Amino acid sequence: MSETTRTNRRIVLAERPRGAPTPASFRLEETPAPVPAEGEALLRTLYLSLDPYMRGRMSDAPSYAPPAALGEAMPGGAVCRVEASRHPDYRPGDLVLAYSGWQDYAVSNGADLMKLDPALPRPSYALGVLGMPGLTAYGGLLDIGAPQPGETLVTAAATGAVGSVVGQLGKLKGCRVVGVAGGAEKCRYAVDELGFDACVDHRLPGLPERLAAACPQGVDIYWENVGGAVLDAVLPLLNPKARIPVCGLIAHYNAETLPPGPDRIPMLMGMILRRRLHVQGFIVFSEYGDRYPEFLREMSAWVRDGAVKYREDVVDGLERAPEAFMGLLEGRNFGKLVVRVSE
Amino acid sequence: MSETTRTNRRIVLAERPRGAPTPASFRLEETPAPVPAEGEALLRTLYLSLDPYMRGRMSDAPSYAPPAALGEAMPGGAVCRVEASRHPDYRPGDLVLAYSGWQDYAVSNGADLMKLDPALPRPSYALGVLGMPGLTAYGGLLDIGAPQPGETLVTAAATGAVGSVVGQLGKLKGCRVVGVAGGAEKCRYAVDELGFDACVDHRLPGLPERLAAACPQGVDIYWENVGGAVLDAVLPLLNPKARIPVCGLIAHYNAETLPPGPDRIPMLMGMILRRRLHVQGFIVFSEYGDRYPEFLREMSAWVRDGAVKYREDVVDGLERAPEAFMGLLEGRNFGKLVVRVSE
Repeated sequence: MSETTRTNRRIVLAERPRGAPTPASFRLEETPAPVPAEGEALLRTLYLSLDPYMRGRMSDAPSYAPPAALGEAMPGGAVCRVEASRHPDYRPGDLVLAYSGWQDYAVSNGADLMKLDPALPRPSYALGVLGMPGLTAYGGLLDIGAPQPGETLVTAAATGAVGSVVGQLGKLKGCRVVGVAGGAEKCRYAVDELGFDACVDHRLPGLPERLAAACPQGVDIYWENVGGAVLDAVLPLLNPKARIPVCGLIAHYNAETLPPGPDRIPMLMGMILRRRLHVQGFIVFSEYGDRYPEFLREMSAWVRDGAVKYREDVVDGLERAPEAFMGLLEGRNFGKLVVRVSE
Repeated sequence: MSETTRTNRRIVLAERPRGAPTPASFRLEETPAPVPAEGEALLRTLYLSLDPYMRGRMSDAPSYAPPAALGEAMPGGAVCRVEASRHPDYRPGDLVLAYSGWQDYAVSNGADLMKLDPALPRPSYALGVLGMPGLTAYGGLLDIGAPQPGETLVTAAATGAVGSVVGQLGKLKGCRVVGVAGGAEKCRYAVDELGFDACVDHRLPGLPERLAAACPQGVDIYWENVGGAVLDAVLPLLNPKARIPVCGLIAHYNAETLPPGPDRIPMLMGMILRRRLHVQGFIVFSEYGDRYPEFLREMSAWVRDGAVKYREDVVDGLERAPEAFMGLLEGRNFGKLVVRVSE
């Protein structure tokens, strides 16, 4: 097949969603695959990563990264195979991590590429436990969370790409680890497979009481990746000098308006003051990019020897990415969500 | 005068205020002065410190310190002179810092006492720039605020005991320093005497716009000691990786209810996430007590050579402490508020 006959399917941002994304937010297009210029490589997407942060890119509200452009392929990280290359550092067949978006093909000048270690358990792990979500958990927990033996760590989205690693790192550091997850199956998995001390189902009534019962010594670290009712349940349990790494707020990503009052900012600030809380946001590669080699070495060993377990939720076919992404925002995935785009 | 004939005037907590304290919250009592037992010293209060944190002690809501007891002297730090002593380390005439409360006399076993350096510019400075408020500014700003040359620092209560020191330390560290204060006279003082680059009057309309104009490079450090409208004006100006040491929330101390909605916690948490803010509370002696000697050495030198200026608002007479304290919560003081109880 010559380069000119390749067809590139791509999923573009059709309109900026108000509230939850819908099928109308996306559009599947077919265009000729791009042709690499001198100094570029042609990439074939094997696995596309779907992550909550992408909801932010669909909006044009100010954020730390520019929004996705209307009519352009949705952005995202992917594991790709080099199909053709006019770049001296890449050869056909190389596996790379690229920021190439929701599409079959892309060209790159190499600036966004990282060659993948052929010894990876699976190439798609570079999108999860051994990639951005893993480094997020590693950097944010060890730096801001600063877990100490005997402390209690709570993480929501306990079986997700980040929360599952946060909790297992907490166990490695000697913490009591309590997860929050949606549904009995995820909660069982967190305890039985991931080794959490307890996991509370946020879909059942009485979350504050059940979380309190699971944290008899209070909470020293709350890994914030959801917000909403989970944050509300955690706040009264926070011990003096508790740390809250703020990694995500998935409960609010689809919200168009703020919840009804009263305005509880004075309550939250008062709690930060009186309990001497440390609340801090971070962006993984800005803050912890320089720890990537150390992370990769340590995490690879933990994955290899089973100290950190990792579960993927693999969806087949690029065309199913929008549906899978909408489900991610509702917690319908079970494990790190990836789309298998091609073999 | 024999010890048994001394009369102790003391101001006790008469009732826990709902909302702002009123004269009925306090009661002036006269009792016989206590008599020191073996191992104790009798203290005569010279200067009583009035500080915003005392509002918290008047409530029995859970906090980091136990509440003041009904019918007992209001708690507080004071500069005292040893009148009589059965303690081997203290002699009559010694000047000490004590946590002896709103009264003329107290006894102490020494556990809460610190001898004052006779070289102090004035003994009352031990209640302000060279005492708890100064250490609050020094520890919180240098540790959590971590000021860097060229950054913009905003502090509210700019002419108060803590804010004035925070701003001047910010200048010593090379920051652009913008104060927020109530009234033209305080704002002039902050710029002309304390050397702030600008100071914005929060009593005039348009605080958000005027603060934005005074911070053309945004805000890197916000010293939070008020909350309310000042926090609201600062939030949109915060730069990525801004730090917010949470020292106090005087705008809310008298509030019985939360402000009307919507609930802006998701907005604040979203801002912490996207702008990678570091928001942290602290309690001065718990966190920075071990830095007291270093603080005292550095700050004494700055005060001596005029690098840090310090203004006291001295009220005469213990009986005026309630009125002065009520004014403090409304920003009526101008400088560190102390009560001269005796000569």
